[in-house]
Amino acid sequence: MKKQKVSSAVIRRLPRYYRHLTDLYLAGVVRISSSALGKAMNLTASQIRQDLSCFGEFGQQGYGYNVSSLRDEIAEILAMGQNHTAVILGVGNLGRALAENFHFDRSGFTLTAIFDVDPNVIGKTVSNVLVRPIDELDNYLKENPTSVGVLTVPRAAALDMAERLVQGGVKGIWNFTNVELNISQSDVIVENIHFADSLLALSYMISENET
Amino acid sequence: MKKQKVSSAVIRRLPRYYRHLTDLYLAGVVRISSSALGKAMNLTASQIRQDLSCFGEFGQQGYGYNVSSLRDEIAEILAMGQNHTAVILGVGNLGRALAENFHFDRSGFTLTAIFDVDPNVIGKTVSNVLVRPIDELDNYLKENPTSVGVLTVPRAAALDMAERLVQGGVKGIWNFTNVELNISQSDVIVENIHFADSLLALSYMISENET
Repeated sequence: MKKQKVSSAVIRRLPRYYRHLTDLYLAGVVRISSSALGKAMNLTASQIRQDLSCFGEFGQQGYGYNVSSLRDEIAEILAMGQNHTAVILGVGNLGRALAENFHFDRSGFTLTAIFDVDPNVIGKTVSNVLVRPIDELDNYLKENPTSVGVLTVPRAAALDMAERLVQGGVKGIWNFTNVELNISQSDVIVENIHFADSLLALSYMISENET
Repeated sequence: MKKQKVSSAVIRRLPRYYRHLTDLYLAGVVRISSSALGKAMNLTASQIRQDLSCFGEFGQQGYGYNVSSLRDEIAEILAMGQNHTAVILGVGNLGRALAENFHFDRSGFTLTAIFDVDPNVIGKTVSNVLVRPIDELDNYLKENPTSVGVLTVPRAAALDMAERLVQGGVKGIWNFTNVELNISQSDVIVENIHFADSLLALSYMISENET
């Protein structure tokens, strides 16, 4: 597969491609043209061809894309087959929602451990995963190299926990705390979920829609 | 304020501007240059000037931006002073996490009601907001025009609930269900939070980082 520097916008579209191709695949669609895929995704056919050209040759002139194999290729680009592991830090409402309802496996991740400070949940399991005391985090990460730490702790604990994840050698932090983690001196990649950014964009759009 | 068609990328950056300016404001910063603001946000100074030029004249040559007034202007662009209201549909872990921990007010929204089907939670309050039976949704929306419905119901209920929100006259749906809501025939704007898209982007980035 030829490689080139891929823009952040393309990276953000890849999971959307994967999601739409999965829907098509589950609906029994065997092949699709770039224009039909574009229509479903609100992109132009040429944008799709250009996006995918970052990663090699896909599809055939006059045939379009084979849904199943394009989906597989994108899954590979997204590193979904690399047995990534994740640990959740903080099993309050949000951590619990992710542990119980989010399908880590469908993104190629295995949820391997959950950590919390609350004695009422430590020792119990959530979605068959043991909740461990946060004191065991450092040792756990040393003994179990982990791809991603999911940060769902209260804001006040965010920086300290992020630092311990970095020290523990995680490769990425999935940050739900709304705290900016300034860990740019490390190799760890931070992916933020900012609920407020999303709601404010919606606020803007509904107001525009009225005028 | 002069108006022009604003690209989706700019709309997505506005809440980030607001977030960074709020941090600066709370830190007591009075003014900031476009290059310093850009550095904090990983944007170029000219990109910032170009983004803001969509909405009028901000800042002064040689002075930069007044943090507080630029923040106020962006808040206005984001329609944060329009007394938007929100209702949550489904108070499972995720709905509860939003009701209890997400500051709707900081985005200019008031959470006015919560709906669920579970008799164990109906009639109780979560964050001082009454949980009502879902049967009351249609009447509630008729009597209480509502800006946004927050969809945190199980996937199987998503389409039906979205339809009822549309019928009830909401202007936007904040959709956490991972179900594509095909309601494009209406004027209702759907803003999706796709956790998996975010995790897959992180998966891609950590793999790229290793090679």
